[in-house]
Amino acid sequence: MKLTAMPIDFETGGKPIVILNKEDAESLGLHSSDRVRLKHNGNQIIAIVDITTKFATSGHAVINNEVVLKLKTKVGEKIDVEPAGAPESVMFVREKIRGGRLTHEKSRAIIEDVVEKHLSDIELSAFVTALNVYGMSMHEIEGITRAMIATGKTIKLPGKIVDKHGVGGCAGDTTSMVLVPTIAASGLTIPKTSSRAITSPAGTADKMEVLAPVELQLVDIKRVIRKTNACLVWGGTLELAPADDAFIKIEYPLGIDPLLLPSIMSKKKAMGSKYLVIDIPIGRGAKVKTVGSAVILANDFIELGKRLKIDVACGVTYGEQPLGQGIGPALEAREALLTLQGKGPPDVVEKVTYLGGILFEMVGKNNVDGKKYAMRLLKSGKAHKKMLQIIEAQGGNPKVRLSDLPIGKNSVDVLADKTGKVLWVKNGEVATIAREAGAPKDKGAGMFLYKKVGDSVKKGDKLFTIYSDNVHKLNSALKLAKQYEPTVVAKRLEDKMLLEKVPEKIHHKKLFMLER
Amino acid sequence: MKLTAMPIDFETGGKPIVILNKEDAESLGLHSSDRVRLKHNGNQIIAIVDITTKFATSGHAVINNEVVLKLKTKVGEKIDVEPAGAPESVMFVREKIRGGRLTHEKSRAIIEDVVEKHLSDIELSAFVTALNVYGMSMHEIEGITRAMIATGKTIKLPGKIVDKHGVGGCAGDTTSMVLVPTIAASGLTIPKTSSRAITSPAGTADKMEVLAPVELQLVDIKRVIRKTNACLVWGGTLELAPADDAFIKIEYPLGIDPLLLPSIMSKKKAMGSKYLVIDIPIGRGAKVKTVGSAVILANDFIELGKRLKIDVACGVTYGEQPLGQGIGPALEAREALLTLQGKGPPDVVEKVTYLGGILFEMVGKNNVDGKKYAMRLLKSGKAHKKMLQIIEAQGGNPKVRLSDLPIGKNSVDVLADKTGKVLWVKNGEVATIAREAGAPKDKGAGMFLYKKVGDSVKKGDKLFTIYSDNVHKLNSALKLAKQYEPTVVAKRLEDKMLLEKVPEKIHHKKLFMLER
Repeated sequence: MKLTAMPIDFETGGKPIVILNKEDAESLGLHSSDRVRLKHNGNQIIAIVDITTKFATSGHAVINNEVVLKLKTKVGEKIDVEPAGAPESVMFVREKIRGGRLTHEKSRAIIEDVVEKHLSDIELSAFVTALNVYGMSMHEIEGITRAMIATGKTIKLPGKIVDKHGVGGCAGDTTSMVLVPTIAASGLTIPKTSSRAITSPAGTADKMEVLAPVELQLVDIKRVIRKTNACLVWGGTLELAPADDAFIKIEYPLGIDPLLLPSIMSKKKAMGSKYLVIDIPIGRGAKVKTVGSAVILANDFIELGKRLKIDVACGVTYGEQPLGQGIGPALEAREALLTLQGKGPPDVVEKVTYLGGILFEMVGKNNVDGKKYAMRLLKSGKAHKKMLQIIEAQGGNPKVRLSDLPIGKNSVDVLADKTGKVLWVKNGEVATIAREAGAPKDKGAGMFLYKKVGDSVKKGDKLFTIYSDNVHKLNSALKLAKQYEPTVVAKRLEDKMLLEKVPEKIHHKKLFMLER
Repeated sequence: MKLTAMPIDFETGGKPIVILNKEDAESLGLHSSDRVRLKHNGNQIIAIVDITTKFATSGHAVINNEVVLKLKTKVGEKIDVEPAGAPESVMFVREKIRGGRLTHEKSRAIIEDVVEKHLSDIELSAFVTALNVYGMSMHEIEGITRAMIATGKTIKLPGKIVDKHGVGGCAGDTTSMVLVPTIAASGLTIPKTSSRAITSPAGTADKMEVLAPVELQLVDIKRVIRKTNACLVWGGTLELAPADDAFIKIEYPLGIDPLLLPSIMSKKKAMGSKYLVIDIPIGRGAKVKTVGSAVILANDFIELGKRLKIDVACGVTYGEQPLGQGIGPALEAREALLTLQGKGPPDVVEKVTYLGGILFEMVGKNNVDGKKYAMRLLKSGKAHKKMLQIIEAQGGNPKVRLSDLPIGKNSVDVLADKTGKVLWVKNGEVATIAREAGAPKDKGAGMFLYKKVGDSVKKGDKLFTIYSDNVHKLNSALKLAKQYEPTVVAKRLEDKMLLEKVPEKIHHKKLFMLER
């Protein structure tokens, strides 16, 4: 059927879309979400059909930018529209919905079409949901991981590549910013790519950006690594796993995360990692809740690593409260520098040296106690010196002073309304309050925690300070803080037995953590 | 945040959408698929966020018709944009994805938001997929059915209301068009609403439309029923279950149908049915494949009926081949009239009297053998007379002659290429060929089957004729017919042992049946 092209400037996530009038669609036997082949002057593209009664009049085909670019057509020109079958990958998605198994070939077909934007949101959502409900066998996990690697870019770096990843869920986690220079100070190569926050107050990239640029081109990243054995950059520019970006757009609104393993491991493999330590914080407010489930996840990471020829070890860490004291990009960057200067909170030091030690022992470094070796690098100032090198190589100021860091200019203290002990500090609620204050977009926004689990508190003591550049956001965060009570104080643990009341739970709270 | 409104004329299925620039979205802490509250001059609406880097520049909010209508805003005016939580129903959808159970209250919240278009395609697709994977308890099925009834219109009609429904999957199924006048001829009231074809060559509404208008307003439907005890109309105008239309848009591209029971039963309840017979055709090419699964489905219909106070009985019928000989709106309408005139194919007569008999016995009609009673009404011409009354009451021509019916003016015969017996006739393939010829949009398009299962065939005998108004479509249907061989002829059954070869199956074939 020949229809008149009506280009309009809308994106729909890069998917080629054509909007047809109901009458024309019926003549072609098409329903909403069917595919058509569009042709014009020897160019062609497959687009997904949307059906309208008003927006496109009969005889017209409304097409978006993706279609216009491919067909090289202009408004008023005739284009040829004919029904096209769904791509084969849609049949594999349907098989998975019905409980089928994904062979490596089928995973590859699906992931390729995800990257090429050939699948609709409806199909993507059904796929992600089916993966979440059925779970995946290790063979399926491996297939999807390999497909993600194959559809992304791969970076070749010299040396013995090691890496670290945290699965997230622990607010204020500055481990990577301290661990990377510690590892690099030993002479190992650790090209750390990290993400920006999705649901947390600060991703490692957001924090590092306080000290140096993180959106580097590949050539610059390679230069930084040559100079320093390390980098702390945003992974987004590298397009290591483009399928993952498409999946995050689906997983985030659904609050599910079935592709955790392929997402993480494909990027590590793409960076050429040979040794990898994975931090799995556990706790009621963390992403992983129990040691049992952390061990299952850890063994999956290890097995997947074997198949990809990456030597993986996992540390299951205490995540019942935020790590350290600072929450938010600048406050966490400051804490990282403080720790590298030997003045950091004990939990950060403990976690960094513990995880760093695992890595050192994996690579057989120095044949000594890994944790002690990590501690030595940290205490000797070698790790700090390395961090300043990295900052300089990435284009930041190595002479940065702690007082230069852009902490939010407005602040408000929250005081204890009773005397007692801190029983727990809620991760999800802390994250939500810090985000309400403006993090991660406002680098200086966030919280500083004075009291952690087990600390004694007197009525009137400062529990935490909220920072923000914006008074409105500060007030709004304070309001949330009063509602949530992130720092729970009581005389005795025995006074706080009720953890949750059902059905009184507020359903609107959205504390799902999706970090990559 | 105040942004400048940029209204643009796009529909996105009636959902309120706002497209924000990435920078503005980040400032507000928003991700794709989050919700925002939009306000202007005291009006407000919740919209789903899409994020762009190009289409909307910073400081602008692109809004669609739904938003414009609600806010009463014009291009260039300032609107207020603030983050809003997801509706509670999204939390219930997430619970279902995680394997939770839907209480009636939760189902009600979800279905209301489906009807109000508050849920995104991603959320709808995840919900439908989760229902398909987990299945639903009868309590959940009942909850969703009641919610569908409550969110749709309910029709009050006088008399003892009976009804019939077929779950579909058998091509050429003219049962309803013969059964309805047969039942009405007995004095019972049977207000049959039916659907148009989604994946079949002709829904009952498409067939009846050959003889009379089917898109009647409620007042006219009531008039028709007062006059004739019956109607044969398209259900779409009545808005009995608006949620169902939203679900069909998701189920169709996924090829799944988890809401079959609520969809059918909510509409029957909304029409006030007290007695209902359900036809479940079974066969390799039908929607339900085995007697075992049909019995499970039948018992679910019966149990759901009990909870809704509808007396349900099911007939599991032979669906290994198309019913009768005509396939396509006009060809099936002709077959229905022929059957009412006592000249119909034996399988149509058998099925109509069998299902009609079940209904008669359910209501205790005449205290006789129901099937014989149905046969008497059919043979006596009373059912035929009733059909002509219905046609007239709906605004059709009761003097219609068979030769008036608009059978496709081009046709091509497909001949047997060998001598033998017909082993089977493939339902899905027949449907696909008839649709390729133009059905259901072209009323005259379709097929006429001369040979059915068990018939002897000589090489050169006509197996079937394909009809179409359009030579191009006719050729295209013929090509498919040669590829599919819908009528399988062999010397002996024993010569055709292989039903399917894996992995040689063509994945692009799309024979999923979704009919309501």
